[in-house]
Amino acid sequence: MPTNQQIVLESRPTGEANTSNFKLVEVATPELQDGHVLVRHHFLSLDPYMRGRMNESKSYAQPQPLGEVMIGGTVGEVIESRHPKFKAGDQVVGMGGWQNYSVVDGNQFGALRKVDTTHVPLSHYLGAVGMPGVTAWYGLCKIIEPKAGQTVTVSAASGAVGSAYGALAKARGCRVVGIAGGADKCAYVVNELGFDDCIDYKQHKDALSLAKALKVACPNGIDGHFENVGGMVLDAVMLRTNAFARIAVCGMIAGYDGAPLPMANPALILVNRLKVQGFIVSEHMEVWPEALTELGTLVATGKLRPRESVAQGLAAAPEAFLGLLKGKNFGKQLVKLV
Amino acid sequence: MPTNQQIVLESRPTGEANTSNFKLVEVATPELQDGHVLVRHHFLSLDPYMRGRMNESKSYAQPQPLGEVMIGGTVGEVIESRHPKFKAGDQVVGMGGWQNYSVVDGNQFGALRKVDTTHVPLSHYLGAVGMPGVTAWYGLCKIIEPKAGQTVTVSAASGAVGSAYGALAKARGCRVVGIAGGADKCAYVVNELGFDDCIDYKQHKDALSLAKALKVACPNGIDGHFENVGGMVLDAVMLRTNAFARIAVCGMIAGYDGAPLPMANPALILVNRLKVQGFIVSEHMEVWPEALTELGTLVATGKLRPRESVAQGLAAAPEAFLGLLKGKNFGKQLVKLV
Repeated sequence: MPTNQQIVLESRPTGEANTSNFKLVEVATPELQDGHVLVRHHFLSLDPYMRGRMNESKSYAQPQPLGEVMIGGTVGEVIESRHPKFKAGDQVVGMGGWQNYSVVDGNQFGALRKVDTTHVPLSHYLGAVGMPGVTAWYGLCKIIEPKAGQTVTVSAASGAVGSAYGALAKARGCRVVGIAGGADKCAYVVNELGFDDCIDYKQHKDALSLAKALKVACPNGIDGHFENVGGMVLDAVMLRTNAFARIAVCGMIAGYDGAPLPMANPALILVNRLKVQGFIVSEHMEVWPEALTELGTLVATGKLRPRESVAQGLAAAPEAFLGLLKGKNFGKQLVKLV
Repeated sequence: MPTNQQIVLESRPTGEANTSNFKLVEVATPELQDGHVLVRHHFLSLDPYMRGRMNESKSYAQPQPLGEVMIGGTVGEVIESRHPKFKAGDQVVGMGGWQNYSVVDGNQFGALRKVDTTHVPLSHYLGAVGMPGVTAWYGLCKIIEPKAGQTVTVSAASGAVGSAYGALAKARGCRVVGIAGGADKCAYVVNELGFDDCIDYKQHKDALSLAKALKVACPNGIDGHFENVGGMVLDAVMLRTNAFARIAVCGMIAGYDGAPLPMANPALILVNRLKVQGFIVSEHMEVWPEALTELGTLVATGKLRPRESVAQGLAAAPEAFLGLLKGKNFGKQLVKLV
């Protein structure tokens, strides 16, 4: 069996996370038991939710245990199988974690899923045709439920969730406006992802200034918003919401480090009769087949061409992850392991 | 025709409202035209929403025009009618405003509604069996949608909305916990309104302290909350919400004067997958008949015995209204005009 490299959580961050919170270790890969499958990971997915798991505090999920392999989505290839449903060479997606190999119980429901890479590149099963894509789908289709002609917005528009959201919203006849950090990301959001407009939040010092830019980009107001960030962006969007607008809350990345970020003017929830709803896509597995079918078609037909930021080798994962938390990535952040 | 007294909005408040914002005037009552009805008001309803109308700023409704009669719900008796549907002696509910008499176009849909006082006292059509009662009904039944055995909470529990909410929640098999200001109000909420518990927020200096008291009163967490106040109370409740809890936002009384009150930790919307939804009951007229039927039955059968604070005479309305904004009332605030 091959020697495995893993990255474990060495310590919990106090305030901002840093590389000393992680540790690279080498371990032997165990012999396969009946029903188990050995997978070699080709790509590891890095996602903002992992920062939440590093904390001890109450969240919607168990904290990541200290000394154990960091949680994470992976795509790869079956090397050896003692399960009848899988054979060597199968391409699979799973939650293999921050390591080069994983041993998976093939009988555990949903732990490993075979994927077809004829029309969709393997790595996209961690992004547009994976958890981030389904996240965008759920927020848009199940919480925002936009009608054709309505205006919908999304923060972190150039990321894995935002790019899928844009394609899904255009397919429903919406005006879709992104919010992203930097002129290059905004140009990509409009020119490559097909958004109608994109606002660079870094050009705005406060929510009022950003709200003015949103007024120009969304002349008919905002009917739906997908929040990946929180803080100033959410405050600005709320100022431009129409009556009965819906806000899907998926991420509050800006609040992970340190004190919670307040919402400046919650009275707008009443004034504009908003629905503000949080969700976690893994609690809605019933929508995954429908969502993945639509997302796969969008990618296969070229209507969704998501960009990827790829770090090389497992040892690069901590730096890449910390960069993701600061918005240094451009599109879906991956680590290439093969 | 009788001489009429009116209270008009004389000036808009800067910061806290005060009596100089109002002015009492005397005017002649116009001769009735065909289709019109002259109503003598017996009671005027005072409600927190009126404070919002006094501002110039954008809200869900038009601002109250300067120099015009303050808006408000009224119950009274038809004095003279030139409309076939109404006759002298009919008891009616309408939006007559802060005045002793009003002339109403009987053809305007919903402007005047006859009521039956056999089992329900006339004044209750401004409270438990009126707009406040339907407000509680809508928030509980259409936004919170509680199941039997769940725990639901409400701020301003001793008020017109809160008292109806308690009876409606008990009828649905819920544990219902109120939040109110002062030991006497809390005793009333438990002993007379039948809540399972009530917390005096004035005994708590911050949201964390209030959240600890909520933990004791709601040992299984909070599944639904009806917010009449905002600020510290909402922050505390959010800390105790269960996964998938629903928060109906009806009032943000604490934010009407001066700067908006922030929400301390909106990340809880994500962490606990909350739905936070604002609403205005007048936009949901389709539920009124069903809601009023249930509320009328609760009052007629003694299951809802709402208390009233009654000020005497139109001139007392401004003081009574300003007291309402500070929580000085005890139960539904009315002005008796006859």
